Amino acid sequence: MRATAKSTATRRISAAGIRHEDKLTAILRTAAQLFAVNGYEATSLDMIANQLGMHKATLYHYVDNKESILYQCLVKSFGDLDSVMKSMEDRSIPVLHRLRLFVRSLAVAQNNDFGRCLVLVGSRPLDITPSGKIRQFRRRLDATVRALVTEGIADGSIKSCQPSLFSALLFGALNWVPRWYSEAGSLSIQEVADSFMDMLTQGIATPQR
Amino acid sequence: MRATAKSTATRRISAAGIRHEDKLTAILRTAAQLFAVNGYEATSLDMIANQLGMHKATLYHYVDNKESILYQCLVKSFGDLDSVMKSMEDRSIPVLHRLRLFVRSLAVAQNNDFGRCLVLVGSRPLDITPSGKIRQFRRRLDATVRALVTEGIADGSIKSCQPSLFSALLFGALNWVPRWYSEAGSLSIQEVADSFMDMLTQGIATPQR
Repeated sequence: MRATAKSTATRRISAAGIRHEDKLTAILRTAAQLFAVNGYEATSLDMIANQLGMHKATLYHYVDNKESILYQCLVKSFGDLDSVMKSMEDRSIPVLHRLRLFVRSLAVAQNNDFGRCLVLVGSRPLDITPSGKIRQFRRRLDATVRALVTEGIADGSIKSCQPSLFSALLFGALNWVPRWYSEAGSLSIQEVADSFMDMLTQGIATPQR
Repeated sequence: MRATAKSTATRRISAAGIRHEDKLTAILRTAAQLFAVNGYEATSLDMIANQLGMHKATLYHYVDNKESILYQCLVKSFGDLDSVMKSMEDRSIPVLHRLRLFVRSLAVAQNNDFGRCLVLVGSRPLDITPSGKIRQFRRRLDATVRALVTEGIADGSIKSCQPSLFSALLFGALNWVPRWYSEAGSLSIQEVADSFMDMLTQGIATPQR
């Protein structure tokens, strides 16, 4: 049954001249938008297939289930962050500069279609799904920030503070951005990230003389 | 049908000797916990009634629908914030002190059973419900912070910055707390709020000499 559906799907897609990769991207983008609007639980594979004008059996040719869609959205939007996280270990660059680059990259990743969906969907779906991949990725992001802050405290560029609390503050602020940010507004996402970093590193209080 | 259910419910409750208010609080607390665990969409009035060992008809004696439950949770947890917001206008207290008090009060309100549920549920349910009361309350919180920052910039205690961006940063950070904070940890919720305020007002970077 599944095999038949697959070969039918393949024929149909070849006929339309659409490459597998393009079709997968279209599926992920549609799913991401539906997740962001209706929520993850309330979005079914049927709804995704309908929106695409596609049979559900065809959908299964590209994706296994909802969690795999969510995970592939993560890979789409956060894939570049792997190299960014790696570059955070380069101690030839001042730690606060690295932190700024990280915040900027994360903000960009979280505010495209795929990243937005992941942030808006939240962590609840991941509590009820078996694979811990997304959670694991989030832990790496958190560990990266904590390591940078710890390094900055050690080299004297960052004041004594609790790295885990700073990380919680930063991720809270960044995870909230997709809920209010609009590309139509006056600020680019990089400007938002930079303003956040200015406030977080310099503070908003006027220095007391 | 509803009337019969109501009078039955009233009799049953009187027999049990439980006051209306206590029962309502029990309903709200149970609903809040179920919302926080399962999500708002995935929690039905049936599930709430079942959890309480109560007929759904009895439940209707106390609450009209899911949105009214969510709104009453807001009133339970955020009721005190009305007077806090009012006190933010008292210009005899330095603006940064008032902001700190506000952040502390909000953090406390957001991290009890009722407040947690509201934050974890997020704003999606409110997009699909007619009453704008919760949204309106959130706007007042946001307006309060922006007014404080604007006042601080004017009186020279706060650096030139965009009040709306600071507000977005602050609410993002605070709204994230119920996702990671545990009362069993080493920090009280007031300590978390104070640490956030220290970082936000003074910044984490060591002042350059």
